[in-house]
Amino acid sequence: MSASSGSADNGPVPDETPPLALTIGEPAGIGPEISLKAWAHREREALPPFFAIGDASCYRETASLLGADIPVEQISRPGDASSVFKHAFPVLDLPLAVAARPGKLAPENAAAVIDAIDLACDLALKGEASGIVTSPIHKRVLYEAGFKLPGHTEYLAERAGGTPVMMLSCPGLRVALVTIHMPIKAVAAHLSTSAIVETGTTLAHALRTDFGIDAPRLAVAALNPHGGEEGHLGREEIEIIAPAIPFIRDTGVEVTGPLPADTLFHERARESYDAVLCMYHDQALIPLKTIDFERGVNTTLGLSIVRTSPDHGTALDIAGKGLAHPGSLIEAIRQAGEIAWNRRQTAAGAHA
Amino acid sequence: MSASSGSADNGPVPDETPPLALTIGEPAGIGPEISLKAWAHREREALPPFFAIGDASCYRETASLLGADIPVEQISRPGDASSVFKHAFPVLDLPLAVAARPGKLAPENAAAVIDAIDLACDLALKGEASGIVTSPIHKRVLYEAGFKLPGHTEYLAERAGGTPVMMLSCPGLRVALVTIHMPIKAVAAHLSTSAIVETGTTLAHALRTDFGIDAPRLAVAALNPHGGEEGHLGREEIEIIAPAIPFIRDTGVEVTGPLPADTLFHERARESYDAVLCMYHDQALIPLKTIDFERGVNTTLGLSIVRTSPDHGTALDIAGKGLAHPGSLIEAIRQAGEIAWNRRQTAAGAHA
Repeated sequence: MSASSGSADNGPVPDETPPLALTIGEPAGIGPEISLKAWAHREREALPPFFAIGDASCYRETASLLGADIPVEQISRPGDASSVFKHAFPVLDLPLAVAARPGKLAPENAAAVIDAIDLACDLALKGEASGIVTSPIHKRVLYEAGFKLPGHTEYLAERAGGTPVMMLSCPGLRVALVTIHMPIKAVAAHLSTSAIVETGTTLAHALRTDFGIDAPRLAVAALNPHGGEEGHLGREEIEIIAPAIPFIRDTGVEVTGPLPADTLFHERARESYDAVLCMYHDQALIPLKTIDFERGVNTTLGLSIVRTSPDHGTALDIAGKGLAHPGSLIEAIRQAGEIAWNRRQTAAGAHA
Repeated sequence: MSASSGSADNGPVPDETPPLALTIGEPAGIGPEISLKAWAHREREALPPFFAIGDASCYRETASLLGADIPVEQISRPGDASSVFKHAFPVLDLPLAVAARPGKLAPENAAAVIDAIDLACDLALKGEASGIVTSPIHKRVLYEAGFKLPGHTEYLAERAGGTPVMMLSCPGLRVALVTIHMPIKAVAAHLSTSAIVETGTTLAHALRTDFGIDAPRLAVAALNPHGGEEGHLGREEIEIIAPAIPFIRDTGVEVTGPLPADTLFHERARESYDAVLCMYHDQALIPLKTIDFERGVNTTLGLSIVRTSPDHGTALDIAGKGLAHPGSLIEAIRQAGEIAWNRRQTAAGAHA
């Protein structure tokens, strides 16, 4: 049963949805600043309630540094977040080892950064948080502190179960990736028909349950220039990508492709699909960030929990200066709220 | 001496510039149709005068098919084009072997397609045409007819001399390519520091002489996602691309990079450079066609002659239906005229 067939009678109303958990991410980066700015925009942007998981004094000092009149209030359990959210920035306190200094990485704080992710994940699994929004982490300082964390996506997949698919979105475009963080020269060897089928199927399922699209339309990008030009500029389209398409179509979704990637992202083309299945990182990220640099959202599809994040990094160079733009985080919070709501509607509809 | 320092006193005025030569390209494609449409827009768009090289009866039949009141007039030499251009579509007649039928490829006409390119090139080399604009060709029918023509760019480089660089542009963006038509998996192995230096130097020179930019600013794109993330996602940035940059900078041009490709093409980023040096086809073409699908222009830099073309194909599927959009060809004609004018100004300035 599709999301949109759920009704107010048998589904939960949004107000009953638990709050979202927002992790602190790298405390020396812009995470605390944009979190506070997002809260300050809560009424104008009609954001779902959220609470931060991190060091309450770090948020207080950041508010003071910004010269912003943002009250920070500690909560003892997620259930208190929604009422506090109306008048203060709610924080489930998780103290850092040393005070955060904007722009200065401190390996001593790596454990607290990880702990925030773990706690967010636990609360989401228990249903006390309706989803998690992760602030950017700085992988190098985590590596140096001994944590082997390839990225939020892989880490959460291990803890929360499911086969993760990375989707990026901005108003007007959704792109999902078959391969993600690898050198360009490794991409072709990592593509397989089964990986494309699996990613496409997860994407199609998510468009239904997480985004409320009853009859999703997918466009599948080619790998090579001109879509391989009938094999003259590469054979992956013929041998790997095209064979995947009937399998994805068999799940009841409209699929076109493989299509030359350079023809896929202009305004008129974007009207013809709900999402594009991309073969490699920059094929997806170049058009997305060209179209909307400020509001990209990274969503992990295919997990048992809801997870989004802004699609930018820690921006150490501008941390603490009041310059960071909260647009991407605001979209990430909004999108996590929508997915959580849609999933609850779907579940309620299925049980009705 | 830079183009913009030339003055009306020592440079030729635009009216004295010879006309542009416009080749017919694939006669079964949209070339004849968009050529006529471009001529019809000549006053509204303030286009430089051009003449077509191709089968006069093909253009007449296309005009009739379009139901357009466009007089087609044969000329016997390029010098007559500019005066005819005001009231009729000027054609230097080069008959086809068999009548063109929209959408139906005829290998018998392959020789005439090539002859038009050869004649345009000869006239440009002799100075009777100030540059050439090539309509799209259909490579497969040329191959099947026995012509080994990898593309206009390589063919013209062989005939007119110079090391060609493919540049694509639309209003607000110029991108030049270090590698062009090859599978994604071959790109990394084809990159070299010397190729990047050569392409960057040609690009910088062209920005000065062809586009009148005294102090060009180049951005160099990285190859890998996140710019290789300090070597974790590929080492080409460290080993191949970064070492090229000082050499390009030594030619007196401002250069930044290697920069992550996904951060390079949003509106604010585009204000920080005059052109981007891209490592592979889709890295350049995805953002260009995302930003402006209708008006992309392909310019061959580094040749002794001026050459532009629309950045689309023969579009056999819509040929003869009146649906083809002439925007890209109109921009190609305008750009060829500007480059020719700038080159003449530079030459006049240098000789003053």
